[in-house]
Amino acid sequence: MSLELRKHFEKITPVTDAEFDYILSHFVVKKFKKHQFLIQAGSAVPSDFFVVKGLLRAYYINEDGKEHILQFAMEDWWISDYQAYFNKTEATLNVDCLEEVEVLCLSIQNRDKLCAELHKIEHFFRRKSNAGYIALQRRILCLLNNNAKERFEQFLTQYPSLLQRLPKTLIASYLGVSRETLSRLSA
Amino acid sequence: MSLELRKHFEKITPVTDAEFDYILSHFVVKKFKKHQFLIQAGSAVPSDFFVVKGLLRAYYINEDGKEHILQFAMEDWWISDYQAYFNKTEATLNVDCLEEVEVLCLSIQNRDKLCAELHKIEHFFRRKSNAGYIALQRRILCLLNNNAKERFEQFLTQYPSLLQRLPKTLIASYLGVSRETLSRLSA
Repeated sequence: MSLELRKHFEKITPVTDAEFDYILSHFVVKKFKKHQFLIQAGSAVPSDFFVVKGLLRAYYINEDGKEHILQFAMEDWWISDYQAYFNKTEATLNVDCLEEVEVLCLSIQNRDKLCAELHKIEHFFRRKSNAGYIALQRRILCLLNNNAKERFEQFLTQYPSLLQRLPKTLIASYLGVSRETLSRLSA
Repeated sequence: MSLELRKHFEKITPVTDAEFDYILSHFVVKKFKKHQFLIQAGSAVPSDFFVVKGLLRAYYINEDGKEHILQFAMEDWWISDYQAYFNKTEATLNVDCLEEVEVLCLSIQNRDKLCAELHKIEHFFRRKSNAGYIALQRRILCLLNNNAKERFEQFLTQYPSLLQRLPKTLIASYLGVSRETLSRLSA
């Protein structure tokens, strides 16, 4: 599973064998079963998680018990409660497994250490963060500008492979539309 | 106006006088009048803009001519069309001045150059990008979870100083609520 991580880094910056071994030594491999939690609201956030295998979601539960999905993550993506992770505060989100999952875990201490020691790793994470920022801006525009049908079509175009792996209820929660509306659209 | 930029960098990382002079030499000072455009949809994006003075907005105009405001920026903030800036593509957003404006402009070439030459600048921009990512996630949750009243109250709490400087129409466009609704709430 280290091969996936190396490929992932090398999409942005080449690393030598020695560098990669050193980088990898800061990660911990973990496996989770479907429905297990990686992060629970109210607890500390142990890591950022690089997904080697499987599918997860990060979601918020409001006072009425309603769930809002902030993020999905499949192979080659990262997932965490980033507000809590970066600010070292309690989680406000939950992250759980929608399938059997294998992840590589990176604590904030190890991330900061690697970024300080290796300029190219700081570069890697800056580029990842910029790309994430752009994706979130696009999602905000989609929420402001698009009706349920347009949101669903955009999701289909952006993440065709996710559609097969996700129950409609969860896609509806991610898009901020009702399940009934989505069922009508995707029938 | 270079003092503001130095203070801004030093919130995250100390810089020596020589380093700061070198950093500053990669920025260009510009002044704009109210209503002038810094970025227009369909054109190239010349810079990321650090706001020394004034107030700006970044917005998208959809096919029906409706405006959606993606971002405001006042003193000590940055604004651009980041998708176009980072990917070196045509702007899809407009950025214009809501007041008289003074900005320090940083081209993507100079940003990449500074980040490659000075590890601490790469660190600075990674930290800024992480903070921006978190703010956008909060906004998405606000859009998914909150009604017009709650969105307005959150805006008030987060940006009390912006309220005095912005017409209600623009706040409504930022929050994704109708102007009439907002007028009722803020009466």
